Amino acid sequence: MIIHMAEGASPEQTQRVIDRIWTDYGLHCETIVSATTVVGVKGITSYVDEGRILELPGVDRVIRITEKYKDASRNFHHEDTIVDVQGTPIGGPHLTMVGGPCAIESESQALESARMAKDAGVDVLRTFVDKSRTSPYDYRGLPLEQGLEIAQAMMAETGLPSVSELIDIRHLDAFLKAGISIIQIGARSAQYSPLLEELSRVDVPVILKHGFGNDMNEWLCAAAYIMSGIDREGRTVGSGNRKVILCYRGIKAFETETRFAADISMIPLVRTKSHLPLLADPSHSSGDRSLVERVAYAFVAAGAQGVEFDIHNNPEEALVDGKQAVNSEARRIVENARKIHAMLAGVGIETGSNAAGVPAG
Amino acid sequence: MIIHMAEGASPEQTQRVIDRIWTDYGLHCETIVSATTVVGVKGITSYVDEGRILELPGVDRVIRITEKYKDASRNFHHEDTIVDVQGTPIGGPHLTMVGGPCAIESESQALESARMAKDAGVDVLRTFVDKSRTSPYDYRGLPLEQGLEIAQAMMAETGLPSVSELIDIRHLDAFLKAGISIIQIGARSAQYSPLLEELSRVDVPVILKHGFGNDMNEWLCAAAYIMSGIDREGRTVGSGNRKVILCYRGIKAFETETRFAADISMIPLVRTKSHLPLLADPSHSSGDRSLVERVAYAFVAAGAQGVEFDIHNNPEEALVDGKQAVNSEARRIVENARKIHAMLAGVGIETGSNAAGVPAG
Amino acid sequence: MIIHMAEGASPEQTQRVIDRIWTDYGLHCETIVSATTVVGVKGITSYVDEGRILELPGVDRVIRITEKYKDASRNFHHEDTIVDVQGTPIGGPHLTMVGGPCAIESESQALESARMAKDAGVDVLRTFVDKSRTSPYDYRGLPLEQGLEIAQAMMAETGLPSVSELIDIRHLDAFLKAGISIIQIGARSAQYSPLLEELSRVDVPVILKHGFGNDMNEWLCAAAYIMSGIDREGRTVGSGNRKVILCYRGIKAFETETRFAADISMIPLVRTKSHLPLLADPSHSSGDRSLVERVAYAFVAAGAQGVEFDIHNNPEEALVDGKQAVNSEARRIVENARKIHAMLAGVGIETGSNAAGVPAG
Amino acid sequence: MIIHMAEGASPEQTQRVIDRIWTDYGLHCETIVSATTVVGVKGITSYVDEGRILELPGVDRVIRITEKYKDASRNFHHEDTIVDVQGTPIGGPHLTMVGGPCAIESESQALESARMAKDAGVDVLRTFVDKSRTSPYDYRGLPLEQGLEIAQAMMAETGLPSVSELIDIRHLDAFLKAGISIIQIGARSAQYSPLLEELSRVDVPVILKHGFGNDMNEWLCAAAYIMSGIDREGRTVGSGNRKVILCYRGIKAFETETRFAADISMIPLVRTKSHLPLLADPSHSSGDRSLVERVAYAFVAAGAQGVEFDIHNNPEEALVDGKQAVNSEARRIVENARKIHAMLAGVGIETGSNAAGVPAG
Repeated sequence: MIIHMAEGASPEQTQRVIDRIWTDYGLHCETIVSATTVVGVKGITSYVDEGRILELPGVDRVIRITEKYKDASRNFHHEDTIVDVQGTPIGGPHLTMVGGPCAIESESQALESARMAKDAGVDVLRTFVDKSRTSPYDYRGLPLEQGLEIAQAMMAETGLPSVSELIDIRHLDAFLKAGISIIQIGARSAQYSPLLEELSRVDVPVILKHGFGNDMNEWLCAAAYIMSGIDREGRTVGSGNRKVILCYRGIKAFETETRFAADISMIPLVRTKSHLPLLADPSHSSGDRSLVERVAYAFVAAGAQGVEFDIHNNPEEALVDGKQAVNSEARRIVENARKIHAMLAGVGIETGSNAAGVPAG
Repeated sequence: MIIHMAEGASPEQTQRVIDRIWTDYGLHCETIVSATTVVGVKGITSYVDEGRILELPGVDRVIRITEKYKDASRNFHHEDTIVDVQGTPIGGPHLTMVGGPCAIESESQALESARMAKDAGVDVLRTFVDKSRTSPYDYRGLPLEQGLEIAQAMMAETGLPSVSELIDIRHLDAFLKAGISIIQIGARSAQYSPLLEELSRVDVPVILKHGFGNDMNEWLCAAAYIMSGIDREGRTVGSGNRKVILCYRGIKAFETETRFAADISMIPLVRTKSHLPLLADPSHSSGDRSLVERVAYAFVAAGAQGVEFDIHNNPEEALVDGKQAVNSEARRIVENARKIHAMLAGVGIETGSNAAGVPAG
Repeated sequence: MIIHMAEGASPEQTQRVIDRIWTDYGLHCETIVSATTVVGVKGITSYVDEGRILELPGVDRVIRITEKYKDASRNFHHEDTIVDVQGTPIGGPHLTMVGGPCAIESESQALESARMAKDAGVDVLRTFVDKSRTSPYDYRGLPLEQGLEIAQAMMAETGLPSVSELIDIRHLDAFLKAGISIIQIGARSAQYSPLLEELSRVDVPVILKHGFGNDMNEWLCAAAYIMSGIDREGRTVGSGNRKVILCYRGIKAFETETRFAADISMIPLVRTKSHLPLLADPSHSSGDRSLVERVAYAFVAAGAQGVEFDIHNNPEEALVDGKQAVNSEARRIVENARKIHAMLAGVGIETGSNAAGVPAG
Repeated sequence: MIIHMAEGASPEQTQRVIDRIWTDYGLHCETIVSATTVVGVKGITSYVDEGRILELPGVDRVIRITEKYKDASRNFHHEDTIVDVQGTPIGGPHLTMVGGPCAIESESQALESARMAKDAGVDVLRTFVDKSRTSPYDYRGLPLEQGLEIAQAMMAETGLPSVSELIDIRHLDAFLKAGISIIQIGARSAQYSPLLEELSRVDVPVILKHGFGNDMNEWLCAAAYIMSGIDREGRTVGSGNRKVILCYRGIKAFETETRFAADISMIPLVRTKSHLPLLADPSHSSGDRSLVERVAYAFVAAGAQGVEFDIHNNPEEALVDGKQAVNSEARRIVENARKIHAMLAGVGIETGSNAAGVPAG
């Protein structure tokens, strides 16, 4: 952590910063004086709250070297993490295709979509019982128990592991009891700390999306909430849940012709910055069936270790997001994605300290 | 609701749209055929899920006339809503100044800040027990009971109503029991539906912020979650909670020199579009103490019916966001805000149907 | 074009809109009355200035069916445009690799970089004499004549066609005289109409980037400035320049860890909306050498018909944007890009009227 | 300037940075070694091109202390600049109201709008001969000479100084000859360096807007282009033009209900960072007549030293942007703006070194 004192900051102000770092965090500092004074903090500074330092008089800005999202950072865990989901490895050199309907609407729709996904060759099946919606008037899923029964039938029918979005903390037990293989955290819950903390206490793989207003740091900090086992009062209350799989889905930007801006540079960048497996979602980023296929290929070419996309047996009748679900193209998408992945297997992602993600001037 | 069919859509596709609208929602349609076909849906369409219509073959886009956020819309409730908080009216012609520390850190810090806020002339006191943070390693508040006891002491000391952010649903009972006057929903929980639904079942005023990735529609739909009394399965399970107060706090944008982009046009626009009281937060939008004062005045001049800002007895020692808290300037801010509000009392906010918020070409 | 009247608009207001459309543009209208009145304008409406319609009393919003950027729209030119550059076809089924130094700094740097690009297998050489810079204190290029001489030497050495950015209109003649094969318009000039108009009067291929604050509509309208041959006073003064090649480079968004947000969905979307050849620039979007390779592959996988990227013989000594230039990886990038392109040759881009780019709910 | 070396950078890499700074810019460095190495550059570093430093091996990021936009920075010119326009002072403690039609459409429209603006009490008259438009098919102004004649008639009629947007460099002489008092640079030309450079060579006040994709640094660097008198090849070829007036107009963001996001914090921030006069434009930011009045008041309350807004004698018939022009409200806007300005005259804008604009954590 490097602390830049403002122009005209007094030596007393600088000393106070140094004292604060020592008394609060037990870390030593060193300084240089040029046009302004710069204070370098030595050691692991993930736990230092830069807000507290920033507020000291005379401090102009604080730059982190040690990332805030320690547990999710490749600096602290150099090798790719591989998450095992019922024998299916996610991350590392593997490509994981996740597909299925955006939401469970009925038994027949769910089972037909599941068979279509299985036939297409996906590794993990979407079995979404709850749907987070912008408006309270929109469809938000079948009753919980009915939905979970259908999810189980989908797994039984296909023999595939499953992923379901968890919205309400109070549903977690029912999800685990029903045998959901992976819990997904969606965009609207992506920074909701009580939910993230709850997942740090269970031993189940989690697919973590980011909010459409979140940057990389916020996303990886959300992963750290699940991984760290630190409670609201700062106590380490467990070993945390290390089985976190990231899934990129694009952010809000000013272009109105696409649903979200899926910044393709984020794929190799997040691979560089974090050791966690990285998937990407072409359905929810592009928002349009006619774009999903090409965007899926692009994510794989960029280095994503998997793709999660909507497959629906009858998109025109879908209750949720049918506009972005593919149908019979699913098989071709899975096949071509695997070909691109295989072709580029030899081209590494830079993961060393030279792989700076800092933008050029 | 106006449905635009794509170029080349067939008459059968158009008919199918019309049939779907009738069978699913019981609404009638009328069409015109120009370069393309346009279908107008008659009646109240807040309950129509445009996603379902969009996915029908041949549909190009769907335009709402009736807003999605019906309960929060001025089209359905022309007069300003005024929320009563223990005798303090919020909304309508009133200006409500809300102030206090960003978070409760200790009894002395909280009480001194509360006295400073009271002296400054605020109407409602910030008594924040929980703090939502990006990183799990940062300070997130004192233990719940200790925090609530201090919040009660702050109220007792000043005689002011209080507002506290609720993050964990499971804390709601404790908040209400402790006598917190207003529940605040913060940016990171702003679209977390289980929390919003829970608040629809209690009779307590709510200050609702928007997420920093949310647009106006998403914000007002979140208000509708609290107001509508509709449950996850679409049933009306109560009359909902109508005591919603909006608080604007800016969105993420590409400028890095300010914390969030507080789009000032949103103030008169939201006043036009919604009947709910509208506050704004200059501390969390600007992120810098040296900007808070002027931004507070601007919000009032733009038509905000109140300002919520951070006041800290000793910003340099604050555990959370001290950089954006004001100190002795608080009194001047309250006084000048009231002067600007009084001066502009005669200048109305357009609330009729001519007040279009649609941007020009 | 569909015109939505506001709630409560009078029949007289609607009639006035219809009259205005007829008197100003000679187009007929049809209306439907549902909750509000909708007016459909028949015929080609590219020339209708929606701002003029919007300002009429009672008008709520105007929706285009016929795009504003008529000349660049696939609706008016269904087949892919292929631009011939000295025998090298750009667009259609072809993949064009454009590479070379970000700017010409010296004869040796330029020639060595050119040889490296040639060896890597590029089709077109970057020979950038002028550089547009944010700050006046930064390097903006060698003197014009010296720069152009080196550009000519680069072409002579490699036998490749060249592309150079034109900033100052007054340099156009010198560029053409020096034999520059393609004129590039950069982000900072992307909406500067006098420059675009000047290019509509010459017969030279143009690579058109978009500004980092521009959306798709603004970008394609800039293309229409070059293509249409319409002058400032609305007169058709020539047949325009049809040899426009688009190059995507990402937009400003709130993420600070990447230079610009390169929204990957834009690649298949722009292919759908426009018949013009589409390249993409992984160097200027990602801003980081360690990301360029993977982003280049992603662009091709998404359907880009070419890639323009920075190759520098000695990036560490580059005067401009060395951080984003590749060196010896260039050859591998070209080879793998061609492989991905060949593999996906059979997977079309949807270009019919069903390929809506409208985002889902 | 502070240079952060990457983790694992070698001592040789650090030494090379230090050598480069010395050989290229004649500046000395000092270093500290903590978790990583930090190099502090001493002296005035506005002329240092951080891109060149960033590209050196082992460099992770470069932080400026001395701003890039030296000539526009308050650090180099502490007092407010006041620009004299034919006896009307702009900047410092003065409030300047600029109004008139968005564009000159006809003699009668222009003269009636001018009289309305004069009656409303504006200090400077908008006399816009050229209009920059997104699409080539839209109205871009009357023929140059006819437009300038009308502009002169508007000045003669009202006795007010005038401002006109200059788009085409080749029109500058005609503008100056016609007696236009202030040249305006609009959003689409805001980073077009040949135009900015041309204005550095004439002695005429300039109102400089920023592009809707520009951040504060890019805007103030554009001001530096006009002020510095440095040519394309880095030579100081004149004393530059110091009469630059900034005008804020909002940026692109994801909210679609307002035209541009006018981040209100930018007003006190830019006042802090630059000594130049700062106006703001409520018409082009909000894009809607019903929002203009309140947004104008907000800009003044935030510390803007003037407002530029559209006044049209008959907005419904306007050829350009009529939706955002006010009519008879103009007088009330001018009066109330002056009252707010007078009331807040005693509340300073912080301009010292404690006024950091750096966002809190």
